[in-house]
Amino acid sequence: MGGSGDHLYIALMHYPVYDRQERVTASALTTIDIHDLARLARTYGLDGFYVVTPLQSQQALARRLTDHWVRGRGATYNPTRKEALSLVRMADTLEEALEGIEQAKGRRAKTVATAARRYAQARSYKEMTEVLRQGGDAPYLILFGTGWGLTREIVEKSDYVLEPIEGKGYNHLSVRTAAAIILDRLLGGE
Amino acid sequence: MGGSGDHLYIALMHYPVYDRQERVTASALTTIDIHDLARLARTYGLDGFYVVTPLQSQQALARRLTDHWVRGRGATYNPTRKEALSLVRMADTLEEALEGIEQAKGRRAKTVATAARRYAQARSYKEMTEVLRQGGDAPYLILFGTGWGLTREIVEKSDYVLEPIEGKGYNHLSVRTAAAIILDRLLGGE
Repeated sequence: MGGSGDHLYIALMHYPVYDRQERVTASALTTIDIHDLARLARTYGLDGFYVVTPLQSQQALARRLTDHWVRGRGATYNPTRKEALSLVRMADTLEEALEGIEQAKGRRAKTVATAARRYAQARSYKEMTEVLRQGGDAPYLILFGTGWGLTREIVEKSDYVLEPIEGKGYNHLSVRTAAAIILDRLLGGE
Repeated sequence: MGGSGDHLYIALMHYPVYDRQERVTASALTTIDIHDLARLARTYGLDGFYVVTPLQSQQALARRLTDHWVRGRGATYNPTRKEALSLVRMADTLEEALEGIEQAKGRRAKTVATAARRYAQARSYKEMTEVLRQGGDAPYLILFGTGWGLTREIVEKSDYVLEPIEGKGYNHLSVRTAAAIILDRLLGGE
């Protein structure tokens, strides 16, 4: 497999994201997303996977899930799941995730937003792959939105924005499958 | 987006697949898989998505789900989901799926197995992309296994086998995210 996932992180953002009516909201956690993204993070050799939500009840749910698989009965039942879910970290906010990475890496990560709509400043996957390669060991954090996607404000404040996955006139993938495609385009190449 | 998904079909196989102990079994349906794979099928412009299970109760469940989104209240609530789930067809067996395609296309589809283990005859994604391109309008059916994967017999009877998605020593993706990566490698190229 191609590029190195070292120094790369992903964040699954539950706030601030849009709801159906394009109101800013905190979305509910989907446990299957945590499993799928953790397994992707492990597959592509990423350094960590932040679940970002300000809702403490949702953080407790995520902790119960990861504890079961990392330290509880799940760890012996399915050791490969333990490997994946060991990469999960919780954060109240994007800023807290960035601080966590800074503590681990000694420098602040650049953020890379993903979006289903096209932003003027969007980079192609080829360009972004090259940026990551040239970044050497600088940390990057790729942001995935739940609900109806990351708010414009978050996208516009990001250091980079990726172009949408272009379907045949259809652009409505789940965050699980979109994250899989995006990580493979950035890191799975030959 | 690259290659054409016309004349391409996918099948989500619930039988015959392995369970944890490598016994041949019929796995239970996961409704989120049907949503995710239908949305992928629509994104890549595929001709259809077969849900293969011999269990009639499971077929009834899948039909209730697709009816809700294609003809029921879901169709007005979320028209993009209707577009995706309209591609779903049910089949008792792989053979029945192949007969369905033959009726629609006038010729039998070649089968392409996917597997997490490496088979001697496995093709690279580059090779398979070329096979599909040269196939013109001949139909192909890509098989995805649920549970612990397609049985060796199904893989060895297939016309083609794809190489596994190589992770950094980790090969345990969900069928949802694996299908996303595989379809993007075959059809998402520039």
